[in-house]
Order: sequence, then structure tokens, then C-alpha cells
Amino acid sequence: MHFVSALDRVPEMRGVLCLFEGVASGAADGYARMTRRPAATLLHLGPGLANGLANFHNAKKARTPIVNLVGEHSTKHQQYDAPLSGDIDAFCAPISAKTVRLENVFDMGSVAAEVISEARRYPGRIVSMIIAADYSWSESGAAGFAAAPARPPMPASRPAFGPGAGFLLGGHLLTGKGLDYAARLAAAGYKVFADRNTARVEGGRGRFQPERIAYFPGPAQAQLAGLKELVLVEAKNPVSFFGYPNDASLLAPPDCRVVTLAGIEEDGLGALEALGLPEAGFADVPEAVLPDADSPLTLETIGAAIAALLPEDSIICDEMISSGPPVMEQVARAKRYDFLPVTGGSIGQGLPVGVGAAVACPDRKVVVLEADGSAMYTLQSLWTMAREGLDVVTVIFNNRRYRILDIEMRRTGAPGFGDRSNDMVDLTRPNLDFVKLSEGMGVPATRATTLREFIDQFAAGMREKGPRLIELEIVQ
Amino acid sequence: MHFVSALDRVPEMRGVLCLFEGVASGAADGYARMTRRPAATLLHLGPGLANGLANFHNAKKARTPIVNLVGEHSTKHQQYDAPLSGDIDAFCAPISAKTVRLENVFDMGSVAAEVISEARRYPGRIVSMIIAADYSWSESGAAGFAAAPARPPMPASRPAFGPGAGFLLGGHLLTGKGLDYAARLAAAGYKVFADRNTARVEGGRGRFQPERIAYFPGPAQAQLAGLKELVLVEAKNPVSFFGYPNDASLLAPPDCRVVTLAGIEEDGLGALEALGLPEAGFADVPEAVLPDADSPLTLETIGAAIAALLPEDSIICDEMISSGPPVMEQVARAKRYDFLPVTGGSIGQGLPVGVGAAVACPDRKVVVLEADGSAMYTLQSLWTMAREGLDVVTVIFNNRRYRILDIEMRRTGAPGFGDRSNDMVDLTRPNLDFVKLSEGMGVPATRATTLREFIDQFAAGMREKGPRLIELEIVQ
Repeated sequence: MHFVSALDRVPEMRGVLCLFEGVASGAADGYARMTRRPAATLLHLGPGLANGLANFHNAKKARTPIVNLVGEHSTKHQQYDAPLSGDIDAFCAPISAKTVRLENVFDMGSVAAEVISEARRYPGRIVSMIIAADYSWSESGAAGFAAAPARPPMPASRPAFGPGAGFLLGGHLLTGKGLDYAARLAAAGYKVFADRNTARVEGGRGRFQPERIAYFPGPAQAQLAGLKELVLVEAKNPVSFFGYPNDASLLAPPDCRVVTLAGIEEDGLGALEALGLPEAGFADVPEAVLPDADSPLTLETIGAAIAALLPEDSIICDEMISSGPPVMEQVARAKRYDFLPVTGGSIGQGLPVGVGAAVACPDRKVVVLEADGSAMYTLQSLWTMAREGLDVVTVIFNNRRYRILDIEMRRTGAPGFGDRSNDMVDLTRPNLDFVKLSEGMGVPATRATTLREFIDQFAAGMREKGPRLIELEIVQ
Repeated sequence: MHFVSALDRVPEMRGVLCLFEGVASGAADGYARMTRRPAATLLHLGPGLANGLANFHNAKKARTPIVNLVGEHSTKHQQYDAPLSGDIDAFCAPISAKTVRLENVFDMGSVAAEVISEARRYPGRIVSMIIAADYSWSESGAAGFAAAPARPPMPASRPAFGPGAGFLLGGHLLTGKGLDYAARLAAAGYKVFADRNTARVEGGRGRFQPERIAYFPGPAQAQLAGLKELVLVEAKNPVSFFGYPNDASLLAPPDCRVVTLAGIEEDGLGALEALGLPEAGFADVPEAVLPDADSPLTLETIGAAIAALLPEDSIICDEMISSGPPVMEQVARAKRYDFLPVTGGSIGQGLPVGVGAAVACPDRKVVVLEADGSAMYTLQSLWTMAREGLDVVTVIFNNRRYRILDIEMRRTGAPGFGDRSNDMVDLTRPNLDFVKLSEGMGVPATRATTLREFIDQFAAGMREKGPRLIELEIVQ
């Protein structure tokens, strides 16, 4: 309560109300993916933190800096088993690089500064600070000062690799200068791949777009087939999302030598620069063309329409799940954009990350491409979009099913769906009406059942400012 | 996937799809509060479990038996840092009495039986079982058999207490025979109090209704003032919900001797029986009277209308927060009902617990009394109500504000709300439209802005079967 009240006296800090902590944790992730500065979340004891864990897991995998301020019972109250009493340190543990339980109110300022510094350590991490309620109504020491983060260290050694090596770039290397170096590597004859689950990837025309590792092991292994060496730069040896009965987890060929040019916490940009490759151009992707509005509504035509209509410097937040690959293949032809991929696989990332990205970049259009099933995890995000007037267009790919599970059912060799088990993946009975759900939270919404309707609605969303939602009916 | 598929072959197990794990965990809680048998949840790795933690916290405080089946990566895949990889044991820790990581697929059946037995140990606990994906596609051993739980042990000794002692009853003692003994205690001249945060309380006419300990320390301390002895029966020494600058945490007077007749895991019913008190009647509460429909819409008139219209043997799930006390004071006059209170203070309990109670008791009317702010935590519950045709009437007490925080702001001595901090508790801009939100998930809904409208709508809800929602506008 004191912290909330202090917002009136510290206008430098912007408070953004989220109706559920899973929105706050995802928004903090989206904010820092765009700014590379940590947002702070204010959470209420263990259960408040717990509601944010799934998106904190995604943020952890994205190596996003976040500072969690977790309220704890007042010091004298902690000895009792009150309803909200719980082991907050244990709630924080799975997602925090460090959890600090403030032990002395006089240290509040200096500890806060340390926590911020720790969160900003390259490439970024989540730090949780547990603060007893009475520390808010007690006299504290001086405010601290968080110094700018140090540059990440250069790797100690440089591995040898031959001319046929492939490179896998991850971490912060899939934007700006990292992509310039990627283009140089490609021009020098190396195959260059993009880590699938990174915080942020620049894409679109004018950018060198390295091949993104595919989701399923078969296609991913095909991408890497024949490689004798794989050089990792701010990336780990690539593995499949899940393990399956008849697939290897590792995606590189068994006889491929995997070497690290820069580890996750090392200066990959410096390591790429040190290779001394000359500047290089690349063959750009062809320009997007708006499809004929009378074409059938398919994931391909939807993707093509998005690509043609997307304004330059848009930010795309992805949680399309099964609809993703055909759409993104088209979107690659759009004007320059930032793409915020799924990182940790916790469902409910897309909408909250869109909230955070829009708070971070008020002058850029944010487009959330979201599946129906995953949308229902953190749909409260829409209210914050309306409250803050965020410039976010959300497209719901509504196929009325956890479609990805049809594929997983086959892949795991399970017997398939009968009537009763089919009920566990079917999202009809009743159908979700995303137009009503969106309007219920103050975000204007429309439904598109044809490509023409989608083009009209999406074009309007790109033209006008402010939140809106388009429910796309793509039941096959 | 194999587990889901197996639902086709094991009709004894009913699968209920929830759109968010926080609904599943709360529904498992509600189910077991009514049946005292554990429901099983099926959760997807650490983040899937994490989404359920807040309501698992509530279930833990309610001492509800639950069996969590948590999927883990296949054994060979666990060594890699895949997107969903995480420390599942750590995610389970804060809410599980025991976490079992299945180490050998042949033991699946016997370990499952042990897990169920452990969950059912009096008074009930949450046990989590982590199962690697490949155990689903491997040959397993025989199915196990979970024996019926043993009776809880009688307390080893009986404390002495004088004639002016007060009794605090909790655990499973606020239903059935426990309330009969409570009436005997009252008739014998003892003051009898009900633990505030218990799993289930029977109320209404024809039931002895012990005084429920108040939420805030001041009124709670006034209830217990003057007591020289407090006898705990399946309850702990009562403490306030939060600690405050100028209040003691303990609610009993400082000079009150607190003794335990039966601990949380002991046979409180047996201990009460052993007191040998004679059967006794009690003065019943007066019958509820439907208020004049032209009366103003207030929490008191709403409560009186609910009391008069509630059919016998209804189940009330409470998460009204600040609206609760005046409403429940009226509802006490209704015909016999079960009341499922807030137990752990994790927000988002009411609607999911209503789902579980309705699955458990298909022939009884379930009424969820829910605040606007808390409703938005687990609103996805409505879809499951529609899907399963559950007989649940949800009343949203919409005061467009986290009203309880107005009180907490004063109590903590914080400076109060300016414009910017007020934005953190204000739920207007935009207003939430619960009618649209409900219809968006397939539950018919209406809005009541007058008492007459509420009476008409609530009466219809009591008369007809199936889910419906009433948004009550109670902005003051």
C-alpha cells in the first residue's frame, strides 16, 4: 500500500495495473525484450508471485531482466500460520536467478540497487526481492544507485572450425549488428541458423534473416543434416521441444562437432567481430503482395495479408502455436519488424508480452498473433490494453481446438482420440466468442470469416491507433 | 497424450476440461471439499503446475486432498535445457505435502496407490506425482490399490479447562455431527467460535451456527475479549489475516490460556464426543423474509433476497471480499446450506471452487458469490460451467474497484490515494462488462441495477437448472 501510494510522489515510475499477475509477468518480459531494461513487478506474497510464474518461466528462458518486488507479511506476523503465509522463497526459486529476502530495512536502498544491477547482468536475469510489510512503514536508509551494467566478457578462447561449418546464433544476436555479422558469415559460405526460442528477432525486408530452427525434430534435423561442425554463438546445442519415442533429442547430426564461439553470458557480438569477416550484402526476400481479397481464407493468405499491410517497425508477438509456421513464412516478406517468439513454452505469453512491448514502444504498432486456446490463459491483458490505450492489434486464430495436440497425439504414439478424450482438446460446446470477450474488457472487436473481411479489419487496425481485436475463424 | 487417450477406455474416470490450470486446481479443491475424496489434476510440466499454484495454496490451507499428475519430459530428454525444462520439484514444493518423482515405470501402479493414500491422510493433503513422458509409452507393472484412509488418531491427552472457556472449532468440525457437539458446548455455557478459514461450513436454519471469527483484528479481538481460556479443536491459535502497525497478530487476549483439545490431524469429533456432553437444542435464527423489491439495492437487501430465495441444500462459494460480511449476515437465515469459505487468501478461488462443487454434487444448486476484481483471476471457469452444464449461478458484486484496498490503505497507515496510485485500485476506464464476458464463454448472463431486477434474475436462477451469471452493479 505504501509502495502504491508512493507512485503519486515518484512520477518517474509508471504504474500499469494488470488484472492478473500472469499479465504483469508477461508484460515485464515484453517491456524488457524491447528496451533491454528491467521492468519491476509488484506482487502480493507467494500466491501473487505464483500467478506470474508461467510467464516468468518464459522470461527466464528469454534471459529477460526483471525485478520482482514480492510483499511478505510484516516481520512479527511471519511466525504465525496466517492464510496467506507460505514459503515465498520456494515460490520464487524456480524462476529467479537470485532471491533476496531483505533482512534490514536500512539496507532497502542499497539492496534494491544490487538487485537491479544483478538483473541487468548480461544477458539479463530475473531477481526477486522479498520485502516485509513493516519495512514500508519503517524508517529506511538512503536510496541506492544501480550502476550501468558491465559489458559481457569476451570468450577466453576461439574454437577452430572449417569452411563447411554452420553457425547457430541466439541471445541478443538476432537484431541489429548481430544480423550484419550473420550476413557476413553467410556471404563467407557458412550456413547460419537462428535459435528458435530467443527474446527478439528482427525480420522483414532489409534484414538478413537466418534460417530459424524448426519446431519438430524431423524438419529441424533435416535443416542441420550433413553439417560436420556447428558453431554456437550465444546459443546452446539445439534440442527438440519435446522428446519422442522414435526421435533423438539433439538436432545436430550425431557426427557433428559442436563448438562454442561465445557462451550465453559472453560477448557474442565481440566474438563475431573478431572473426574479421568483410561487410557483405545478401539477397533480400521478395516484397509482400496483398493477396486477392476473394482468395480463400487460409493461413497462407492471412500471412500474406499481414505481410503486405504491416507498417514498418511493427512489433509482432507470437503465440499462434499450430498456425504459426505458414503465417510466419509469409510475414518474412513484410517491411522491417521485430518478432518476439515463444521462448519457454509456458502458454499465455502472447497477449501479455504485447502489453509490455506496447508500453515500451508507444510509437510502434504492436501485433499479437494468438491462438484461441492460449489466448484464454491471460486474456485479462486486453483490459490493460484498453486502460492504457496501447496501440495493439490482437488477431485470434480461432480453430476451436488445441490443434497442436492432434499432432502430439500422433507423435507420442498414443492411441488417438475417442469421444471422451476428444473432449479434452475440443473447444466447441460452447464456442468461445472472442468479440464479446474483448468488448467485455473494453477493446473493440470484429470477426472475420473471409479474407476480404480480414483484410478490411486488419488494414483498419494498422491505420488507426489504439487497441483492437480481430477474431479469425479458421476452423478447417 | 496417453493419459488423455485412456479416458476412452476408463469410463470410471471423468475428464473435465478447464481452460486454465488455476481453474483445475480450484475445481479439484471444490470437489474434495464436498466429497472428501481427492480429485486428480493433469498438469503439463512446471509451468502448467505453476498456473495452478494459487488455488493449490488455498486447497492446502483448506487441507483438501488432491492428487496432482505432473507431466515431465521423457527420461532421455531431461538432461537437455529444452524450452519447457525446469525444476518441477521446486514448482511443486510450496503446496505439496509430498512430491513423488516416479523413478521406475514398473512402480507406477503401486506408487499411484501410495500417493492417493497419502492425499487422503486425515484431514487431507496435496500430493504431486511427477511422471516422465516415456513412462506413458512404456510397459508398466500392475495397477495398485489405495486402501481406505485410517481414522485420525485420538489426542493423547485431554487438557483441563474451566467453565468460562471458549472453544474454537475448525477442520472438519463445522459440518454435521461437529455442529451437534458445538451446540452441546454452547448449551453447557461455553462460547463456541468457528475458524474463519475452513474448507466447509454448514449454515442456515436448523443448524447451530457458531460465531465466525471476524476478518479484521479489531472486531475479532472484541469477539474473544474477556476469555480466560480458549480450547482449540482441529484449529490453530487464531491470528489476523495480515499484521498491522498498531495491532497484535494474535486474536485471543494476551492473558488467555490457549489449549489444544485436538490438533489439526487428530480426531476432533472423537475428542468432542469424549467430553460426554448431553444432546442439546439451540435457538434457531429467524426465517429469511424476501425484502420489498422496491427497497434500495444494498448489500443487506441483496443478502436478504439471496437468503429468502436459496433452495435447501444449496452450496455457496464465497469470494465477495469486501462485500462479504453484510451479505453473509443475511444469508445465515436461509434454509440449510453448505458454505465454502476463502481459506488461503489466494485470489481467484470462488468460481473454480464452484465448478468443483457442482461436479461433485450435480443435484444441488451451487451459488458463487464473487467480487469483480477476484472474478477476473479465473473467469475461464465460466466456460467449464457451460461445457459441463453445471448448475451454478454466479453473482458478480461489481463495485468497480479493489475495494478492500481502500481499507488496507487506511489500516497500514499509508498516505492514501492520489490520482496515480488510485489508478492501481480503480477498475473503471474501461468498465468490465461481465454480461459480455459471460456470454463470450457460453454462460447466459443478465445485469441487475435494482433490487427488483436482482430478485427476478436470482429467483429465475434458483428455479431453472444450468449455469447463469448475474452482474450486480453495486457502485457506491
